[in-house]
Amino acid sequence: MSFREYLAGQQQLIDRELERLVPGENVPPATIHRAMRYSLFAGGKRVRPILCLEAGRTVADSPHGIETAACSLEFVHTYSLIHDDLPALDNDDFRRGKPTSHKVFGEAMAILAGDALLTLAFETLSKMNSVADDRKARVIADLATAAGTVGGMIGGQVADLEGEGKPPNAQLLEAIHRAKTGALLRASVRMGAIYGGADDRQLDAISRYGEHVGLAFQIVDDILDVEQSSESLGKTAGKDAQQHKITFPAVYGLEESRHMAERERLSAHESLAIFGVRAGRLRELADLIVQRTS
Amino acid sequence: MSFREYLAGQQQLIDRELERLVPGENVPPATIHRAMRYSLFAGGKRVRPILCLEAGRTVADSPHGIETAACSLEFVHTYSLIHDDLPALDNDDFRRGKPTSHKVFGEAMAILAGDALLTLAFETLSKMNSVADDRKARVIADLATAAGTVGGMIGGQVADLEGEGKPPNAQLLEAIHRAKTGALLRASVRMGAIYGGADDRQLDAISRYGEHVGLAFQIVDDILDVEQSSESLGKTAGKDAQQHKITFPAVYGLEESRHMAERERLSAHESLAIFGVRAGRLRELADLIVQRTS
Repeated sequence: MSFREYLAGQQQLIDRELERLVPGENVPPATIHRAMRYSLFAGGKRVRPILCLEAGRTVADSPHGIETAACSLEFVHTYSLIHDDLPALDNDDFRRGKPTSHKVFGEAMAILAGDALLTLAFETLSKMNSVADDRKARVIADLATAAGTVGGMIGGQVADLEGEGKPPNAQLLEAIHRAKTGALLRASVRMGAIYGGADDRQLDAISRYGEHVGLAFQIVDDILDVEQSSESLGKTAGKDAQQHKITFPAVYGLEESRHMAERERLSAHESLAIFGVRAGRLRELADLIVQRTS
Repeated sequence: MSFREYLAGQQQLIDRELERLVPGENVPPATIHRAMRYSLFAGGKRVRPILCLEAGRTVADSPHGIETAACSLEFVHTYSLIHDDLPALDNDDFRRGKPTSHKVFGEAMAILAGDALLTLAFETLSKMNSVADDRKARVIADLATAAGTVGGMIGGQVADLEGEGKPPNAQLLEAIHRAKTGALLRASVRMGAIYGGADDRQLDAISRYGEHVGLAFQIVDDILDVEQSSESLGKTAGKDAQQHKITFPAVYGLEESRHMAERERLSAHESLAIFGVRAGRLRELADLIVQRTS
């Protein structure tokens, strides 16, 4: 099986599980479920859930039910996109080539759809019956911390908003992105590893892999925002410069940013040494994240 | 000790625990922590946490650490107020006599502060080390369900928004309020009971108590919105009629609404029969909820 076929298969696995976990469009109150599904099934690549699945498989043989835990990451990721796109935040009209949630459902429903997806993430994890309660509690704690204010996603978002218009600064840049996108990507692999029963040494290795992949992901995101057209990105390109955001190309230039992403990719590979051939898919996923074009 | 003294003591207990659980105003990014604290310490009566504490004490002797679980309810309640007050939703400028979060911190920060409080609720519960993991998972599941879209708080909020301007209708009214405020009040006592180790019969009795108290709470809220001035309520009075919301006084009239609240109070008392004198405080709390004037 080629890596491309593998990826398509994993995306299908996640999509089926998301479909099962989110109330149907006819379950009242229908509008909110339509809004949740609109953003969930808008062409997301399922990077975080797939990282979670693969981390679990790296420490254990096909951990039963891990796709449920993986979906909680897509819920949190999608909630963060819906709220980030709101007029009061980034004010984006398009995401993945489609009108954003508030453009379709109005601001009130977009706010509530984000809230609902965040809530559903924790409901989903807490109701899993395929994993022991101690691992369940640790997985929930990891997700909540990664989504939170201290070193987590919301904290990064706040630092990002407050950093707009400030002079480019390498330290602030890395702190923002470690929190804003890095924390959830790191949690993706950590949650999979915890679910699969990783020991401390394995969890440590997986965490380092997640940190490198997380940083690489954001560097590439910033590069793509400069290089690509809105059409190929599916969202408004050039927004970062327009909003005077602190980005990797702004601090280091495009060429050095590309070198940095490549170094993070190699460090991600090195972090996986203890797993040998078991971590093949995780290595390919790191490559994909750095080599993607959208 | 009088009931009033007891109540003040419980509020202090909760406030101390909230203080411990929320990152300080100097923890970066400081703005979000200031915003979270602004709304959390804005004079809330701590009804939900105190119901949780008392339900726990009704099934067990002083369950160790239950105040931590209780605080998660105040986080969820406060997040819901911040988001409800936003311009895109109820557009309220005052809450408990103070400017609402978005008036002080701006809309972006208010949205993120709500998100952060919801996230912190689950982080707090998942990291409790004073309760067994199986009970912890059940408590988290109960909170998430009560806060969610199907019969939970967000579902009620959506039904309420969609019901604006519709003709008053008894069935829709009760469905909205069971979800919008009832579900979280019911979860407050259920979470306390589960934390304390309730058996099925006890949990069933506590759940019924929570349903009656929840309905009574909302009926009284609707009555106060009609009867009181904005000054004594600390928020804009008469908003319900202005926004053509479906309310108990609109459907049943003021007099019958008062009778209904009284009947719910008595039913709440009856639900507690199996606990005998142990449930004295829960009975007093039901009385307080119906007899309050703000």
